[in-house]
Amino acid sequence: MLKNTIEIPIRFSEIDSLRVVWHGHYVKFFEDGREAFGKQYGLGYLDIFEADNLAVPIVDIQLQYKKPLLYGDTAIIETNFINSPAAKIIFEYKIFSGKDKSLSCSGQTIQVFMNPKNMDLYITVPPYFEEWKKRHDLP
Amino acid sequence: MLKNTIEIPIRFSEIDSLRVVWHGHYVKFFEDGREAFGKQYGLGYLDIFEADNLAVPIVDIQLQYKKPLLYGDTAIIETNFINSPAAKIIFEYKIFSGKDKSLSCSGQTIQVFMNPKNMDLYITVPPYFEEWKKRHDLP
Amino acid sequence: MLKNTIEIPIRFSEIDSLRVVWHGHYVKFFEDGREAFGKQYGLGYLDIFEADNLAVPIVDIQLQYKKPLLYGDTAIIETNFINSPAAKIIFEYKIFSGKDKSLSCSGQTIQVFMNPKNMDLYITVPPYFEEWKKRHDLP
Amino acid sequence: MLKNTIEIPIRFSEIDSLRVVWHGHYVKFFEDGREAFGKQYGLGYLDIFEADNLAVPIVDIQLQYKKPLLYGDTAIIETNFINSPAAKIIFEYKIFSGKDKSLSCSGQTIQVFMNPKNMDLYITVPPYFEEWKKRHDLP
Repeated sequence: MLKNTIEIPIRFSEIDSLRVVWHGHYVKFFEDGREAFGKQYGLGYLDIFEADNLAVPIVDIQLQYKKPLLYGDTAIIETNFINSPAAKIIFEYKIFSGKDKSLSCSGQTIQVFMNPKNMDLYITVPPYFEEWKKRHDLP
Repeated sequence: MLKNTIEIPIRFSEIDSLRVVWHGHYVKFFEDGREAFGKQYGLGYLDIFEADNLAVPIVDIQLQYKKPLLYGDTAIIETNFINSPAAKIIFEYKIFSGKDKSLSCSGQTIQVFMNPKNMDLYITVPPYFEEWKKRHDLP
Repeated sequence: MLKNTIEIPIRFSEIDSLRVVWHGHYVKFFEDGREAFGKQYGLGYLDIFEADNLAVPIVDIQLQYKKPLLYGDTAIIETNFINSPAAKIIFEYKIFSGKDKSLSCSGQTIQVFMNPKNMDLYITVPPYFEEWKKRHDLP
Repeated sequence: MLKNTIEIPIRFSEIDSLRVVWHGHYVKFFEDGREAFGKQYGLGYLDIFEADNLAVPIVDIQLQYKKPLLYGDTAIIETNFINSPAAKIIFEYKIFSGKDKSLSCSGQTIQVFMNPKNMDLYITVPPYFEEWKKRHDLP
């Protein structure tokens, strides 16, 4: 299973008037996790773009909130690659409090392959992603 | 069916390097819609807080992206109240392009009732929400 | 004097843990004002780009905060064009509370003309801006 | 001279349609630097709040932009404490590209001491800040 874990400090500007991280910022945390995963395993936005001239827009996000993160804490972001035969990149996320390791939020994103010039979707698995899977022993 | 529709201009700062609205901003658009709904029907954050001393945090969000919004366009945000017997507030959203009326994004949020002091959840329907439903002929 | 005034509602996500609008969001309000000015007078980002292929990046911002805006209020954004012989676009801003009309923030931005392809600066007043000034009787 | 330096990766969501970091995000970078300084030297928002029950809102920001940061780069944020006899906290910032060490942005913030309950300003140097200065041999 391919997995990345990073830890980032909560920013003052991310706290809302209930004194917790505003829920919308977790979408950014998911992207932070995805980017760190991409850097670790060679599946970043730029890797895919430079190899195949494709962008990988998000088409679906789901977030379940369990326990809000507070100011002064850090977010531990765990990003798991979910293998699928489709022309899609699927990640699952778990965000934990750095302080007490409790689960704060979990969720999933689905990305597709798109030609950024004409916005056409790519319905077969593109070459770079195919090789990338092979390199990581994914069926 | 209770429904609110607002139209807001896309901000330059909301556009990402693919020249489309960054996907995370739609969470903000959902909140814009929810707030406008709250103002129209008396179900705003402050209404609930002032009546029952309760906050209404988001516990679940789902977003499906169909077609990205571009700079120069507006977002038409349609917010529908989904009635449920549970101690939850459920909204469904549809975001359309102001230019060609095409569907850009759809989704759903679930909110629960929470005591903001001790963060305890409220598992029965609180008084203000109960009366609010009656006022709007909701079972 | 060329001036635009718009009024926008404060968003829940803009409120920080001190229950006031987080100071960084005023930069966005300035941009909202600038965009509304651009739309009213034909000096938007896209107008300049389409006419002369130039971008107009910010090179200097100053903000003075007087009184924080609160949730439930609106921001009245007043954007004034400051004429200058230089190859620069200068705006002054005043942001007022919609509730009590008190001054919340004032400030200034300076923009220059840049070729977005090679990021070279343009040191003479470009054609579109020159004509624009004439059209508005500015020396 | 008291100084903190941190390095943070540029986020995809911080890039605008000109493929550079949107200018408003630098206000967040200044806050990142300020927070890291506060952690290193014991002058964080919570330190001051817990000691003297005071908040330290920003009343003035100035930013000068030199060279935009790009996606894939990091921001090196240098935060310098500027000593002053007034009841103010003054910081100067320099943001450099992690890649070529060129200066991207410089600026300054001024903060004052405020009672967060009634929003009254504190015009004399409060006890915690006075002791903090002594501890760091500042006149």
